[in-house]
Amino acid sequence: MNRIAEREGDVRAWAWLDPEQAIAEARARDREPRRGLLHGLPVGVKDIIDTADMPTEYGTPIYKGHRPRWDAACVSGVREQGAVVLGKAVTTELANTHPAGTRNPHNLNHTPGGSSSGPAAAVADFMVPLAFGTQTGGSLIRPASYCGIVGYKPTHNFISTAGAKALSASLDTIGVYGRTVPDAALIGRALIGYEALNFDAKPGAGPRIGMYRTPQWSLAEPPMAAAFEESAGRLERAGARVTHVDAPPLMDEIIGAADVINDYETYRTLAYERMHHAELLSTTMTAKLKKAAGVTRERYLAALETARRCRALLDEIFADLDVMLAPSATGEAPAGLTAIGPKGSLGPAAFQQMWTLLHTPTVSVPVFTGPNGLPMGAQVIGPCEQDERALLCAHWVHQALT
Amino acid sequence: MNRIAEREGDVRAWAWLDPEQAIAEARARDREPRRGLLHGLPVGVKDIIDTADMPTEYGTPIYKGHRPRWDAACVSGVREQGAVVLGKAVTTELANTHPAGTRNPHNLNHTPGGSSSGPAAAVADFMVPLAFGTQTGGSLIRPASYCGIVGYKPTHNFISTAGAKALSASLDTIGVYGRTVPDAALIGRALIGYEALNFDAKPGAGPRIGMYRTPQWSLAEPPMAAAFEESAGRLERAGARVTHVDAPPLMDEIIGAADVINDYETYRTLAYERMHHAELLSTTMTAKLKKAAGVTRERYLAALETARRCRALLDEIFADLDVMLAPSATGEAPAGLTAIGPKGSLGPAAFQQMWTLLHTPTVSVPVFTGPNGLPMGAQVIGPCEQDERALLCAHWVHQALT
Repeated sequence: MNRIAEREGDVRAWAWLDPEQAIAEARARDREPRRGLLHGLPVGVKDIIDTADMPTEYGTPIYKGHRPRWDAACVSGVREQGAVVLGKAVTTELANTHPAGTRNPHNLNHTPGGSSSGPAAAVADFMVPLAFGTQTGGSLIRPASYCGIVGYKPTHNFISTAGAKALSASLDTIGVYGRTVPDAALIGRALIGYEALNFDAKPGAGPRIGMYRTPQWSLAEPPMAAAFEESAGRLERAGARVTHVDAPPLMDEIIGAADVINDYETYRTLAYERMHHAELLSTTMTAKLKKAAGVTRERYLAALETARRCRALLDEIFADLDVMLAPSATGEAPAGLTAIGPKGSLGPAAFQQMWTLLHTPTVSVPVFTGPNGLPMGAQVIGPCEQDERALLCAHWVHQALT
Repeated sequence: MNRIAEREGDVRAWAWLDPEQAIAEARARDREPRRGLLHGLPVGVKDIIDTADMPTEYGTPIYKGHRPRWDAACVSGVREQGAVVLGKAVTTELANTHPAGTRNPHNLNHTPGGSSSGPAAAVADFMVPLAFGTQTGGSLIRPASYCGIVGYKPTHNFISTAGAKALSASLDTIGVYGRTVPDAALIGRALIGYEALNFDAKPGAGPRIGMYRTPQWSLAEPPMAAAFEESAGRLERAGARVTHVDAPPLMDEIIGAADVINDYETYRTLAYERMHHAELLSTTMTAKLKKAAGVTRERYLAALETARRCRALLDEIFADLDVMLAPSATGEAPAGLTAIGPKGSLGPAAFQQMWTLLHTPTVSVPVFTGPNGLPMGAQVIGPCEQDERALLCAHWVHQALT
């Protein structure tokens, strides 16, 4: 709490925080028998996720003062395991691209990334050890990369999205921030229920890692491209079996498909806000919805089919691999407080979005540093539903590259 | 409104209804330019679906007096097309199996089925021409069969579930009741956006229909079994090309998989209600959640895999078919007001649930009559995303068998 008092004026990570309530909840846990894995651990919650005892405004004046009648499934789930919800962390408007003023703790003149700006900045700034974020495009992994923390996006639907404001059912994913992979894995274990992972194991051989430039390689800035390429040798020297992934050309279509699906579904999901509160939407959101209105059902169905066909490629791609490695973002956090980056200078959710639609678990680990001294992440990607392996390998990569 | 005033005391279809508000909304539509396909049409909304201008209690005292801050995506969607929301129709407790007193308009001593009890009874009793229901197990199609109306369950995720109380993301589906297929298709068209369907077309040849007993055939009561078998000849005489479907043995596993997925996901989704309002849950719900708590992650993952493998069989099954035909329920509505039927006398959601997990569009048409003079439905099932074809064939079957 002292850390927050000292830093929050600069970082602006929190949409709502009541130190007395949080301390009272922590004391209540202290007096109780141990509830579970997370007993007494403070957790931040992105303000796109409902809480019954704290306001939830989804980053928009439309829902000013809104107090849900329930805790979202993920919030109930961590409370059931003893976690203490510290407060609501800033989201950009409706978890889209209109920023909300949060700053990157590594350099206050730079964006923390979005849309999970607040939870990423809060974890990076040591205000809270763990936090929930969400990702529909690149909203979880991009801020993890920009803020130099671990971001874990589980397999799609592994953490129930019930009680998080919906945008796109095919894409919406709840994920976790921590400062280490074992920390982030703890919430995963508590909610998803996999066995305890032995992060200390020293296997005889390192993991089989496929370096994957992805269809958006041309958007990687030179420092990211160089750091990524150079990491292959370092991983090999640390004991990994490193190969290079050549994905079939079909995979190039995944990015366009994700845009189409996001637009088509979000347009319908946000019908109430469009129809009744258009004047309270940002111009960015209004422009997005206007574009989204034009996506036809034919394009949507074709995009769903592309996604299915690309998912079907993953078995073959992963056949001889434990995980793939890809950049987490195009580079370090850009200057300015726009949530995503300089307008028009990079594709939407570049390097993150394809994994949202492919539904794979990915873990961003902070292993590179950019020319301005800001962190950059590498993304460890595992096959769907094999989150444990992805987390173990991510921890291995994190240690091997730092 | 007169019809409702006359009959509601007996049928008990509505959780909330304000005639003056509904009439005012209808008059407002009258004064406006035509908004779209549904202009001026009254629509009932199952009380598991949020409305900003009407209470939404999800069939449980936990949410007594709850007034959501938004309209669900489907409610906004039909209002955008000019529909008038008439009121909130009764749901069983949290769209599960604990009944709420609604009666079958065909015989007040019989159940209308559940969980979409109110919307099905209201449409069957001519209180409203169209209504939204939902299905996670068999909650849409079973009441359609019991109440003698058309029930249309679209392809999974074709109608956004945003703003409907979530139970199981892999299964939750919003669907539509009407008295004819073209009526029900109208909401589908308005929300899903397919082209106008020519229900009057008289094709040279009838549809290719595969009669499918399904893995639960042994649960069909003799009158349903006889009516279903006998319909094959009638469809043939009406011009259909009728064959019999022998699905691979793997399909037998879909029922168990649906139970496992429903239990595993619902247990997590309803964490808040379990943790904070256990005393307000029915004993039925408490027992379900207790059983659900025991479903392991291994069984859940195996069930997801079964579902994927069964979905992959559909292409081959549908290769030479336009649609399949299967019973909509085990028989006519049982006596008594329990939502599903006599306790333990039939499997959960028999004949409905497999299609929920397979994500196919299905349309129940009221074409049979049982020994007590109550209606029984046949279910027309199409390939995923080919809702138009399923609707056209369902209309054909409806006309051919009545």
